[in-house]
Amino acid sequence: MEVMFCCDKKRMEDKIITFSKFGDTGKGGITRLALSEADLQARSEICTRMKKIGADIITDDMGNIYATLKGAEDLPHIAMGSHCDSVVQGGNYDGILGVLTAMEAAETIVKENIEHRHPITVTVWTNEEGARFDPAMMSSGVITGKFDKSKMLASKDKEGTTFEEALEASGYKGGQKNRMNPKDYMALLELHIEQGPVLEAEKIQIGVVEGVVGMVNYEFEFAGQAGHAGTVPQKMRQDALLAASEAILYLHRELDKLDGKLVYTTGRIICSPNVHTIIPDNVKFTLDARHQDPEVIKQVVQIIKNIPSEIAKCRVSYKELWSRKTVSFNKEFVDFVEKNAKLYGYSNMRIYSGPGHDAQFISDMIPTTMIFVPSIGGHSHCEIEKTKLEDCLNGANVLLQTILDIDKK
Amino acid sequence: MEVMFCCDKKRMEDKIITFSKFGDTGKGGITRLALSEADLQARSEICTRMKKIGADIITDDMGNIYATLKGAEDLPHIAMGSHCDSVVQGGNYDGILGVLTAMEAAETIVKENIEHRHPITVTVWTNEEGARFDPAMMSSGVITGKFDKSKMLASKDKEGTTFEEALEASGYKGGQKNRMNPKDYMALLELHIEQGPVLEAEKIQIGVVEGVVGMVNYEFEFAGQAGHAGTVPQKMRQDALLAASEAILYLHRELDKLDGKLVYTTGRIICSPNVHTIIPDNVKFTLDARHQDPEVIKQVVQIIKNIPSEIAKCRVSYKELWSRKTVSFNKEFVDFVEKNAKLYGYSNMRIYSGPGHDAQFISDMIPTTMIFVPSIGGHSHCEIEKTKLEDCLNGANVLLQTILDIDKK
Repeated sequence: MEVMFCCDKKRMEDKIITFSKFGDTGKGGITRLALSEADLQARSEICTRMKKIGADIITDDMGNIYATLKGAEDLPHIAMGSHCDSVVQGGNYDGILGVLTAMEAAETIVKENIEHRHPITVTVWTNEEGARFDPAMMSSGVITGKFDKSKMLASKDKEGTTFEEALEASGYKGGQKNRMNPKDYMALLELHIEQGPVLEAEKIQIGVVEGVVGMVNYEFEFAGQAGHAGTVPQKMRQDALLAASEAILYLHRELDKLDGKLVYTTGRIICSPNVHTIIPDNVKFTLDARHQDPEVIKQVVQIIKNIPSEIAKCRVSYKELWSRKTVSFNKEFVDFVEKNAKLYGYSNMRIYSGPGHDAQFISDMIPTTMIFVPSIGGHSHCEIEKTKLEDCLNGANVLLQTILDIDKK
Repeated sequence: MEVMFCCDKKRMEDKIITFSKFGDTGKGGITRLALSEADLQARSEICTRMKKIGADIITDDMGNIYATLKGAEDLPHIAMGSHCDSVVQGGNYDGILGVLTAMEAAETIVKENIEHRHPITVTVWTNEEGARFDPAMMSSGVITGKFDKSKMLASKDKEGTTFEEALEASGYKGGQKNRMNPKDYMALLELHIEQGPVLEAEKIQIGVVEGVVGMVNYEFEFAGQAGHAGTVPQKMRQDALLAASEAILYLHRELDKLDGKLVYTTGRIICSPNVHTIIPDNVKFTLDARHQDPEVIKQVVQIIKNIPSEIAKCRVSYKELWSRKTVSFNKEFVDFVEKNAKLYGYSNMRIYSGPGHDAQFISDMIPTTMIFVPSIGGHSHCEIEKTKLEDCLNGANVLLQTILDIDKK
C-alpha cells in the first residue's frame, strides 16, 4: 500500500488567516493589487516562511518568486504555486490558496523529512489578475513568450505608475536567467479554487482539471436612429435597444441547442445616448462563449454569423474581440491527481477550467496540471469568496502526493 | 375677406442666422446653456432688437424677459414666445424659433402699423432645457407654482455655480411683481419645432397643437446572481440582462396592442457589474410612455403591473419615477390656429406634443396654445436640427394672425 502523507490542518488554517490580513478590507475580503503595499506584505511573509523551512529564494525579471527546497539529486525542479494578488474587493482564496497549499505541502515535506530527488519549488506569479496593470496573467505570459515584455513594463495603473516602476520599487526584480524554463523545470502544479458552483453542487471534493476551455469573445453592435421619446411614432422607430434585446434572446435560443457544457455570457451592454427620453441609436453588447471542444466553439461562431443583418430596422454587426484555444494539461499528471484524490478517499470529478490561469500559459512550455477545490456558492472575485478549511487541506494533500509521484518518475 | 398680414422672409432669415452665432459650436449647432455667456449674448440681442421697434422691457425674479409693444387700450397683455437656451450641442431652432417668430410677428405689427388694442409681449423663459440647472422648464414652473423657488435658486451646475448666482450675475433679475400673471395677461402663444418626424412624414406645414400628452416614466429592476462567465453552467444562472431583454420584448409585445398613437421608449439601461466575463446580477431600464388619453395611460400601467414577478429566475420589480397628466390647450385658440393655417393655405393637422414645453405650465394659469412647424428628419436636441425657412415664416404668419384674432376678442 502507498504511503500517505498528510498536511497539517492547524498550519493550513494559520496560513489562511495570516494572509487574509494583507489587504484586509474589513468586510471579509481583501484588496491586494499586484505590487501594492498589501501585496508586498504578503510576498514578504511568503519569503520569511519559506526561508524558515530552508528554502532558497530567487526572483526573475518579472518579479516571479521561486522558493526552492534542494533535492537529493541534481535534477530539474518540480514547481507548484499560484499568485497572491487579488482584484479590488476580492476574496481570501483566489490565487493565494494555490500558494498557501504549496507552502503547506513544502512545509510537510520538511517537517516529515520526506525524501525527494528533485528540487521542489514554490512559485508565486506576479500580477495574475491584471486588476492593477492590464493584462491578466502578465508575468507567466511574458516568460512563455505570449506577451511582449517591453509593453508589459509600460502598462500603467490608474495613477499612471508603470508596472516597471512598481516592480523596481518592490525589491522583487531579479535576473531573466532565473525564469522558469523547460531545461531546469520538469513540472508545474497549480491548485486553485473552482470559482464556480459545479463541485459544490455535485458534492465533489477535488476537481481533477483536464485543461482550460477554449473561448471566443465577440462584440455585437446595433445601429438605429435617435429620436425624442415623445415625438416619434413607434412604427417609424429604429430602436437599437429593442434590436439588442431581440439579439440577446436569439443567441440564447440558438446557443441553448448546443452541447450542455457550453457556457456563454452577455455580460456588458453599452447603450447610447442612454437617456430615458431618447430612443437609443447605438447599443453594443459582448458575448463570451467557452467550451473544451473546438467543434462546439465553431458551432457558436456559426450561430453568431447567422445573426440577421437587420433586426428591428437596425443594422447589426459584430466582431471578434479575442479568442483562445482549449489547453489540455499533461495526461500523466491529470491521472496522478485523480489517483491521489481516490487514495485519500476524496470524491472527485474531471473538470475543465472556464477561467484562465497562469498554469495554462506554462503548460505550453513545461508539463503542467491543476487541482480544483470547491468554492462555496460558486462565489469568486468578491469578498464572500470562501472554501472550507477541510477542502483546502484535502487539496494540499492531493498536491503533496502528486508532487511526490512526479518526484519518483 | 379677412386681411392677411405677412411676415418678412429676409428678416426671418436674418434673425435665424444672427442667433445661430450665439454659442456656435462650429459644427452647425449651438451650445447655449441657460445664463451662460452665449445665452447672455442672445438675450442682449433680443432686447436690443425689441427696443429698436419700440418695446418696453422688464424682467421678473426668475430672469424671464417681457418685451412689450403698447396697445391702444388699457387691457391685459397678449404674450408670445419661448426660450433661447439650448442643450449641449443642440440646434438652432428648439426654443429660439419661438422667440424669433414672436419677434418677427411683433416687428411686422410695428412695420405695417397694424392696430392692436392689447399690449403685445414677446416673452423669453429662463432655463427651459434644464441642461445647465436641473430641472427643465424651471422658470415657467416657478411662476406657476409648480416648483419651489428657493430650491430652484439653489440648483447647481457642474461647476457648482447656483442658479441664483448665475441669475444675479446676468443682470436679468427683476421684480417678482413683473411675473406673467392671470390679471395682466390674457393669452400666451408658443411656436415650437415639432422635434419629431410626423409633420414631415405627413407633408404637413403647420401642426395645430391641441395639448401635451400625459406620460408615465417607470424604472424596472432585475436582480439575479453574479458569477464567472467561465464557471457557472447555463442552467444554474440567474442572468439579469437576459431577464431585462425578455422584459423589454414583453413590453413591446403588450404595448403594441394598445392605441397606435401611444409612444413608449426604453431609453436607459444600466447593467451591473457590466464586465464581459461576469454574469450580470443587476439590470435596470426605464420605460417612458405617452398618450393624450388618460385611459390609454391606465392600460400602460396595467401592462406594467402584469409583468411577471420572476423572469429568467431573476426577481422583477418596478417603480414610477414620475408622471404628468395630459394638458389640453385653450380650444378657442386652437381653433384660431387651425383657421389661420387654412387662411394662408398651409396644410395642417391637429397634433399633441410629446415633449414638455413652458406653455404647458402656463396653460394652468392663462389661456394658452402652441403652433408646431416641421423638423427635418424629426431631428432635435442635436446639431443637425433644422426647419426650412419657408416653414419658419409660415409659422410666424399663423402666430401673427392668431395674436391679431385674440386681440379682436
